[in-house]
Amino acid sequence: MRIAYQGVTGAYSEAAALQFNPSADPLPRRSFDDVFAAVERREATHGILPIENTIGGTIHRNYDLMLEHELPIVAEVKRAIVHNLIVCEGTQLDDVRKVYSHPQGLQQCDRFLRTLADVEIVATYDTAGSAQMIKEQNLTDSAAIASERAASVFGLRVIRTAIQDVADNFTRFLVVGREAAPLGPPDKTTIVFTVPNEAGALFKALSVFALRDIDLTKLESRPIPNRPFEYLFYADLAANREEFRCARALMHLAEFAPSLRTLGSYPAWKDAPRSEPAGGPEPGP
Amino acid sequence: MRIAYQGVTGAYSEAAALQFNPSADPLPRRSFDDVFAAVERREATHGILPIENTIGGTIHRNYDLMLEHELPIVAEVKRAIVHNLIVCEGTQLDDVRKVYSHPQGLQQCDRFLRTLADVEIVATYDTAGSAQMIKEQNLTDSAAIASERAASVFGLRVIRTAIQDVADNFTRFLVVGREAAPLGPPDKTTIVFTVPNEAGALFKALSVFALRDIDLTKLESRPIPNRPFEYLFYADLAANREEFRCARALMHLAEFAPSLRTLGSYPAWKDAPRSEPAGGPEPGP
Repeated sequence: MRIAYQGVTGAYSEAAALQFNPSADPLPRRSFDDVFAAVERREATHGILPIENTIGGTIHRNYDLMLEHELPIVAEVKRAIVHNLIVCEGTQLDDVRKVYSHPQGLQQCDRFLRTLADVEIVATYDTAGSAQMIKEQNLTDSAAIASERAASVFGLRVIRTAIQDVADNFTRFLVVGREAAPLGPPDKTTIVFTVPNEAGALFKALSVFALRDIDLTKLESRPIPNRPFEYLFYADLAANREEFRCARALMHLAEFAPSLRTLGSYPAWKDAPRSEPAGGPEPGP
Repeated sequence: MRIAYQGVTGAYSEAAALQFNPSADPLPRRSFDDVFAAVERREATHGILPIENTIGGTIHRNYDLMLEHELPIVAEVKRAIVHNLIVCEGTQLDDVRKVYSHPQGLQQCDRFLRTLADVEIVATYDTAGSAQMIKEQNLTDSAAIASERAASVFGLRVIRTAIQDVADNFTRFLVVGREAAPLGPPDKTTIVFTVPNEAGALFKALSVFALRDIDLTKLESRPIPNRPFEYLFYADLAANREEFRCARALMHLAEFAPSLRTLGSYPAWKDAPRSEPAGGPEPGP
């Protein structure tokens, strides 16, 4: 299993890939587009993408890319994100004049960063890449915000840990593949649909699931520019799309939703510690 | 009407404040927290806050601050956001070695930025503040991403316009005040509520509105860390909370929702050109 991810060694996405499958071979790529391309060109069997974070919310870009590329979701991973301030050996907090990280990392540590005086905040394409740059260029007046693993990989030192605004910061990642073969028994389905801009239209859409006792674990409306008569929704259903009631609910929704796409059915991430070294996560109780 | 906003002259929030009321007196503040503090300390009559962007999605931080500060929403403004690459007179695109902007601005121009080679991307606390810095420090090897107005205010030049990833980029802003007196006839209500983690709980919550023909114009679930048995939702209702059917719907929801907060009832932004120089926006047809 070779999993393409955005970033360099030490990235949170790489850690999520290894949390999912400790024996996977993570493949670093520069951008999310490149992650999709790597799977399409068979350089990787799968790709992993952050989709939602406690502080930053939904990463709309990755929903857009999933709609564009038609690579089905085959698994998910939830991971606690602990940000650290990382420096060269010998650098103290008072020496830091520049802090490098990905905009999401910077945003998640906003309160901490505002406590630093006379420090320039520099946005980069990834968290671990910032740590790598500090090491390679021996930037003794700089720090990176990245994972503890990035610090150890690049031989740097953590001088402040858990600097994110909320202690309980987690990110949900999705694993995409070329074929819609879920990596474990599927019990969750992600769909994207539109409803006409009419009173009760969303209620009608949700009724197709509620009347069949299918729970929603995520629901989010998104403004569609230039289409004032339709709303776009992302939803996660707590069911496999091949279950009879779920298949029927989706057919029912398609009767009146102007558009409906199923992005995949896959096993929901279970927080219990995993014992299997390879393959999909253990099915829950 | 004195409206506190985050940023400096030329900020998109300032433009939104003036779009709402051309005769308002905009009051710049360093952070969103400072915007709330300015209203609470009576330095400003109102505050304006970006809440949702086409590309970046919901700004969860401002929902959190509204829950924390108890300043009611009294109006909303929708504004098209056009990002520009802004430089000192004489600087060409090839001279640019650093690009400064707010992380949201950088994110919204991600595709354009990736076309620039050997350029450092620097995150700042605001878009217009980046333009101001380039002018004040005469940074001839740098550019800012900001509004056209920021360019003209600081005597800079736009060398690329509409560099955001999608042409139709808009941001919805909310105006908060000290008292729940909407700035115009209210026809929209923003609520935050939780539902128990049970199949059909959200459907039950939405039924209180659907059964009374109240439409939802936004609905978004948010993961709550450490509270696995509850989901938090943001919703916008197309109704005034003082209307009988809306008041009853909210009472109905409160019967079974573990928590419910109404953040305000206010006039929905109408896109028609405004003719009134002051006061709230014109009520729509």
